[in-house]
Amino acid sequence: MWGGRFGEGPGDIMREINASIPFDKRLWQEDIAGSKAHAQMLAAKGIISSADESAIQQGLSTIHAEYEANGVPEDWTLEDIHMVTETRLRELVGEPAARLHTARSRNDQVATDFRLWVRAAIGQIDTGLRAFQSTLVMRADEHAESIMPGFTHLQVAQPVTLGHHLMAYYEMAKRDRSRFADCANRLNHSPLGAAALAGTSFPIDRAATAKSLGFDGPMANSLDAVSDRDFALEFLTCATQTALHLSRLAEEMILWASQPFGFIALPDAWSTGSSIMPQKRNPDAAELVRGHAGRIMGCMTSLMVTMKGLPLAYSKDMQDDKPPVFEAYDLLALSIAAMTGMVGNVSFKTERMRDVASSGFSTATDLADWLVREHGMPFREAHHVTGSVVKATEARGIGLEAVSVDDLAAVHPPLAGCTLPDLSVEGSVASRTSAGGTAPLRVREAIAVARKELEA
Amino acid sequence: MWGGRFGEGPGDIMREINASIPFDKRLWQEDIAGSKAHAQMLAAKGIISSADESAIQQGLSTIHAEYEANGVPEDWTLEDIHMVTETRLRELVGEPAARLHTARSRNDQVATDFRLWVRAAIGQIDTGLRAFQSTLVMRADEHAESIMPGFTHLQVAQPVTLGHHLMAYYEMAKRDRSRFADCANRLNHSPLGAAALAGTSFPIDRAATAKSLGFDGPMANSLDAVSDRDFALEFLTCATQTALHLSRLAEEMILWASQPFGFIALPDAWSTGSSIMPQKRNPDAAELVRGHAGRIMGCMTSLMVTMKGLPLAYSKDMQDDKPPVFEAYDLLALSIAAMTGMVGNVSFKTERMRDVASSGFSTATDLADWLVREHGMPFREAHHVTGSVVKATEARGIGLEAVSVDDLAAVHPPLAGCTLPDLSVEGSVASRTSAGGTAPLRVREAIAVARKELEA
Amino acid sequence: MWGGRFGEGPGDIMREINASIPFDKRLWQEDIAGSKAHAQMLAAKGIISSADESAIQQGLSTIHAEYEANGVPEDWTLEDIHMVTETRLRELVGEPAARLHTARSRNDQVATDFRLWVRAAIGQIDTGLRAFQSTLVMRADEHAESIMPGFTHLQVAQPVTLGHHLMAYYEMAKRDRSRFADCANRLNHSPLGAAALAGTSFPIDRAATAKSLGFDGPMANSLDAVSDRDFALEFLTCATQTALHLSRLAEEMILWASQPFGFIALPDAWSTGSSIMPQKRNPDAAELVRGHAGRIMGCMTSLMVTMKGLPLAYSKDMQDDKPPVFEAYDLLALSIAAMTGMVGNVSFKTERMRDVASSGFSTATDLADWLVREHGMPFREAHHVTGSVVKATEARGIGLEAVSVDDLAAVHPPLAGCTLPDLSVEGSVASRTSAGGTAPLRVREAIAVARKELEA
Amino acid sequence: MWGGRFGEGPGDIMREINASIPFDKRLWQEDIAGSKAHAQMLAAKGIISSADESAIQQGLSTIHAEYEANGVPEDWTLEDIHMVTETRLRELVGEPAARLHTARSRNDQVATDFRLWVRAAIGQIDTGLRAFQSTLVMRADEHAESIMPGFTHLQVAQPVTLGHHLMAYYEMAKRDRSRFADCANRLNHSPLGAAALAGTSFPIDRAATAKSLGFDGPMANSLDAVSDRDFALEFLTCATQTALHLSRLAEEMILWASQPFGFIALPDAWSTGSSIMPQKRNPDAAELVRGHAGRIMGCMTSLMVTMKGLPLAYSKDMQDDKPPVFEAYDLLALSIAAMTGMVGNVSFKTERMRDVASSGFSTATDLADWLVREHGMPFREAHHVTGSVVKATEARGIGLEAVSVDDLAAVHPPLAGCTLPDLSVEGSVASRTSAGGTAPLRVREAIAVARKELEA
Repeated sequence: MWGGRFGEGPGDIMREINASIPFDKRLWQEDIAGSKAHAQMLAAKGIISSADESAIQQGLSTIHAEYEANGVPEDWTLEDIHMVTETRLRELVGEPAARLHTARSRNDQVATDFRLWVRAAIGQIDTGLRAFQSTLVMRADEHAESIMPGFTHLQVAQPVTLGHHLMAYYEMAKRDRSRFADCANRLNHSPLGAAALAGTSFPIDRAATAKSLGFDGPMANSLDAVSDRDFALEFLTCATQTALHLSRLAEEMILWASQPFGFIALPDAWSTGSSIMPQKRNPDAAELVRGHAGRIMGCMTSLMVTMKGLPLAYSKDMQDDKPPVFEAYDLLALSIAAMTGMVGNVSFKTERMRDVASSGFSTATDLADWLVREHGMPFREAHHVTGSVVKATEARGIGLEAVSVDDLAAVHPPLAGCTLPDLSVEGSVASRTSAGGTAPLRVREAIAVARKELEA
Repeated sequence: MWGGRFGEGPGDIMREINASIPFDKRLWQEDIAGSKAHAQMLAAKGIISSADESAIQQGLSTIHAEYEANGVPEDWTLEDIHMVTETRLRELVGEPAARLHTARSRNDQVATDFRLWVRAAIGQIDTGLRAFQSTLVMRADEHAESIMPGFTHLQVAQPVTLGHHLMAYYEMAKRDRSRFADCANRLNHSPLGAAALAGTSFPIDRAATAKSLGFDGPMANSLDAVSDRDFALEFLTCATQTALHLSRLAEEMILWASQPFGFIALPDAWSTGSSIMPQKRNPDAAELVRGHAGRIMGCMTSLMVTMKGLPLAYSKDMQDDKPPVFEAYDLLALSIAAMTGMVGNVSFKTERMRDVASSGFSTATDLADWLVREHGMPFREAHHVTGSVVKATEARGIGLEAVSVDDLAAVHPPLAGCTLPDLSVEGSVASRTSAGGTAPLRVREAIAVARKELEA
Repeated sequence: MWGGRFGEGPGDIMREINASIPFDKRLWQEDIAGSKAHAQMLAAKGIISSADESAIQQGLSTIHAEYEANGVPEDWTLEDIHMVTETRLRELVGEPAARLHTARSRNDQVATDFRLWVRAAIGQIDTGLRAFQSTLVMRADEHAESIMPGFTHLQVAQPVTLGHHLMAYYEMAKRDRSRFADCANRLNHSPLGAAALAGTSFPIDRAATAKSLGFDGPMANSLDAVSDRDFALEFLTCATQTALHLSRLAEEMILWASQPFGFIALPDAWSTGSSIMPQKRNPDAAELVRGHAGRIMGCMTSLMVTMKGLPLAYSKDMQDDKPPVFEAYDLLALSIAAMTGMVGNVSFKTERMRDVASSGFSTATDLADWLVREHGMPFREAHHVTGSVVKATEARGIGLEAVSVDDLAAVHPPLAGCTLPDLSVEGSVASRTSAGGTAPLRVREAIAVARKELEA
Repeated sequence: MWGGRFGEGPGDIMREINASIPFDKRLWQEDIAGSKAHAQMLAAKGIISSADESAIQQGLSTIHAEYEANGVPEDWTLEDIHMVTETRLRELVGEPAARLHTARSRNDQVATDFRLWVRAAIGQIDTGLRAFQSTLVMRADEHAESIMPGFTHLQVAQPVTLGHHLMAYYEMAKRDRSRFADCANRLNHSPLGAAALAGTSFPIDRAATAKSLGFDGPMANSLDAVSDRDFALEFLTCATQTALHLSRLAEEMILWASQPFGFIALPDAWSTGSSIMPQKRNPDAAELVRGHAGRIMGCMTSLMVTMKGLPLAYSKDMQDDKPPVFEAYDLLALSIAAMTGMVGNVSFKTERMRDVASSGFSTATDLADWLVREHGMPFREAHHVTGSVVKATEARGIGLEAVSVDDLAAVHPPLAGCTLPDLSVEGSVASRTSAGGTAPLRVREAIAVARKELEA
């Protein structure tokens, strides 16, 4: 099992390190689509005959059906998806197959295939993120009034609404989708026809192949076309930022499911047990989403390091572009789906949330603000006075809701006889009506905007 | 020198780990601008008096002048730029200063400051990249006809023009600028008024402060506003991708300056000597640009790891957002400037480049294409025939330009008596007229397009 | 403030990108020590006169005193610490200074300086980690019997002792110290005398300089000596692994300080307040330690990427080795000191910990084990039976400690009339006496071993 | 092909994200070995009967044979290799299988399996690195006198010997092996018996299972035992440092194979062709080795990020430890094998190397050293005089070997009538006899030492 490698002949090692078919077979659809577009253009420009084109098109359609039915054969001696397919085409249609590779190189071919694949992958991720957003909005709508503790430094800070908290993730996903969309726009130029690196002397029509493959047009510089992997790197940076957002929500899920928090219960479908501890219900999916952020970031690192310092144009190092992109896509798509499932199905224990929201003197800011608003105190002084009230209150083991006028006056005599402010968590939340604030009415507005955005 | 740390009292260590003033003082302009906008709005909404506002505005203007003249005082007990400035304001104007922090928190304040700073930094980088592009276009114009070897796998592949090669970097920089522009657009929403995390009960006008600071509008969710660092991460990913491009050109500069290549001579201003070897002229600046790609990527890694798994809203970990962004900006701006200087001032040894371009059977593809075009041979067969010609020619120690009709016929008898194709590097390059190809006329077109883009 | 860079002349940019004195001045002690050792050897071998040596030694001692008193002057035109010092030496002693650089180059000089610095840095870190371990042991000793919940998946799993939990970090720090020690051993070979890259024709004695600088001997290959930065990379990987351990403890501190947990109270010296919320006491130091793990990992990434693909021997990229090492050292030393301070001074709320340890059916495994031990049940069946008991008990809102014999018999009739096992958390913890287990007696043993290790 | 994910039911997604069997099946041998050792110990301690043990041992042997013959069945509903194997054992031997999991948990089981696997992987890597070193030594021996240019900054610096250059990589590999050995030593402690996290109340013998699995002893703390992944991280950092070394040699191979260098020819077995350019012979294997450094570093990044900030003890995130370790191992083992093959089979074009070594005034340092040695000139002055000679010589288009006494005297009159030094590259190399220098006699000594080390 272990012994093989260092006893292998050079041929075996070379074949193994060189073969990309184990992973680039995943590009088979894009490779066939690219060849079909290329053949059509070659015939339209008179570079090959229409009889040859016809044979090629039929052969490629046959291969498409074969791959769909049986998968792509993994023949390492043929190296990559391009040669596997061309070889099969030769078996099927004979000489015309030998004319397909006119005026192109594997360098522009693989760049084209991979761009098409990444473009489709972005479409999938966008669909997944949209579903995630819809689920967030649905749950936010249920809980626009539910009170939970807002944390900073993981210390109870001020009461907020659960709906507001969930909508923060809606905003993150919105930026994620926007980044992926920018990436999709930027990548949508065709390398096909750049040939090896210099373009070609055949009278090809790059605009035509670009158009038939759904690109906005051909890339402007043939050297750049074959040596650029910006689109893959940008896909990976977008994926990493999205994964980081998911890791934050995953962390919260894990915290909230922990007994000391007790803010949520995950349904059976999203929990697992222990091989030794019969009572356990673990938030494995959330932990894996959090962990996957590391792996996705590893994928991004991988390609960045690989690209560093490569001279133009194509270098074989660039073959290492695909494994990290495929892995990051798989992990991210799965993470989005899992997080959507968890958000959609979790039970929020709103009573427990409210209890914690009331602890930790969470409405102290409200008291300070009231001193400013009603008593004209400069904020810094109000902050100081409130701090003293909290200190005295804490020493007596009571919360701010139980503070009396006398308590206030003891700290700041001019307050004697004043009307006490509303320091309940409900009052606090309802008062935060500034734009983007946590007041339920603002949350409802945000939900309405989000629904409109999702419909667009 | 070493001994201190572990003998320090807890107060010293806490103060040192907690203080951000050593680096966040760099935000002083943005911090003052944010406070001015906030004070103006507070007065406009009647939350503070206009007399107070007036005192605050004058005080802040004085502080601006002081900082500009003498720098920002680094008082670690005051922790950060916000408290240093507010404390100074209190000294200058007294009680009104204590009213400035009404309806805001350091959480939204620092997020605002930092966004403003990153926005300005992107403006600077864009200016630098534009100058870099202009320089590339200028040199490409000089060398639209100069022939150099195009490499793949660092093997001589096909002749290209130096102008075409330089324009490949124009394209990369164009994508870099486009990514930075997207980042600038996406970040241009104001967190100010999100307060600690929940919004505020004061009747603030977030749209007004957003507008006076040049933002497109307020951020939609207060929790998101204080816990989001996407803009910094995106800046860092854009910087890394740009640095990777520069590392590729730097690698080429270093290769080209190496004696075996001998493609360029760097002017004295861009070379350094050796402390031991009197003859050396080293491309240090190019090496440092290549090396800095590592450091910039390190900065990006830093913040990504820091953000992973942080629960909402603000956590102190996020204070570690600034050092990597500042460092990446400094390194990238310097790298762009240095690379622009080198590209602008390097001497290209075009005769040597042309010689190398003629080596390595670089026009073999032209022969194969000619067999396809003139003799109707399928490309795969033409590729095979050409390979045999190269093999025979190589064995005789001559290049393709010296091949005779008999040589061709010896490999492929039907070629007897044909008219030899033009296999010169000039002919090869001139023939690559496909869109985006290396033919001088295409390079001239690309330069014209670029000039229009740069004027826009 | 922003405008400068792209208006600067090439000389300014080149000087700025090239100068390392802003950071390598930190090597001044090592640089002087290296020069002293080199001069002594040159004289001993008759390469310079002893009068020259004497002048050099005195001059270097003077410079040492000057730097100690006034710091190192930052003259960018002199580039680096080596030239700044040599230039000053020339001012002080004249011609002999010009003989110091015989048979060496900056390439071997800087490699020597930097190895000495890293060796000393490891010594400092080791001292810090030892203090951290001592503090852990001290607190573990106080809490060898204190019960807290052991978590897996952040779900209450089984009761453990706080002492046991703290000793887990002792083990991590032990491995960290062991890794740093390996790094120190591996780096302790002298590059001095490798000269530029090839060695020298002067009859130098590399063993002598190695010995006077405390190295185990000279490095074996001159090309390797000047192009190797393994020691810096290994320092950074050791630092990152240590930082990751600290990030785990920091995460726990933050969780434990959070109101829903309420496991600890941080003393004032290790807490900070809020600019807006008067009641807040934030665990900032723990958050910064957690965040710094990202920055330290960024430093490691930085140098790894920089070193990737560099041909031999010295390349200027390698000048970028120092900033990340210095930064990582500073952040790690501060993190260790801060964490030691927090661990030493935190108050553990053991009553709350015990309460949570009793929740979540944390002794279910004890019940299952009892079924195996006392009733010969296969573990898998015992696991299943216990799961049913938990389910029934949970439905009735009671914990395992309140289970009756009848409850057990209802699930598994043969248990009717049995003697109930001890399912208290104290009983559970006391029973875990397997080697390395959480039983107080095992914890006391581990503490005794640790104390012996720390004395060694 | 794309549509599936977001239409899947929660069960499918959960099963997919949770299942580790697709990758952890690679641990099957270690899992069986661990279970056998555990069963033997349980019987020896009377925790299970010897009849039960016997059934378990036979069943496990049967499963071993089955897996060896047919591979491990990938049943996602059974999650992982542990449950797949235990389930099969139950089918084979019935009830005794249900007793195997007594006094252990998957947490300690997987930690044990994975340590065993990493230990074996290190053994494999060590074997590969040793073969790599042997090959370097063999080629160094052939070329102990062959002259090549030594580069700094990729500028010709001083002549060196090819043997010396190759031996620099011997030293790097020596450090790599030493790091891996340290990692193997440090990991060699057994987690088995830590159970879920707290140890167990069964009277197990952890020393016995440790011994039968070849560990040095049990890990000291049960919480640490199940939550530690240092060994995997350290394996990944060692792998990354090794990969960085290989990337440097790969870079050199690629440079040397490039036409402008022309230092080497790769044999057919280590070259590949082009789909479009018939003349190409590309150093693909070297490029892939260089590129794989990125992927291996990505693997390391992945696990570091995943581990950051995880509270004790086991979290499911840690399941993401295996894919990066497996991938890094595969890539590194293949890279070492490929690089060994290339080094062993490459043809060095020593004539071309010598020619380049003679260019660029590569013996200028020899002239300066001669001025110091023979004329008592301070080195700094000698450096300056030599610089002037080079400048004058370069202007006349000749090299240093052609310099006359008059040329020297023209720059420095006192040199009139002196005997010219030997400035040939052979003379230069032969004179570098300092310890570790490039002189052939030193290289031969280094080879002798290396051979002794390799035999050890």
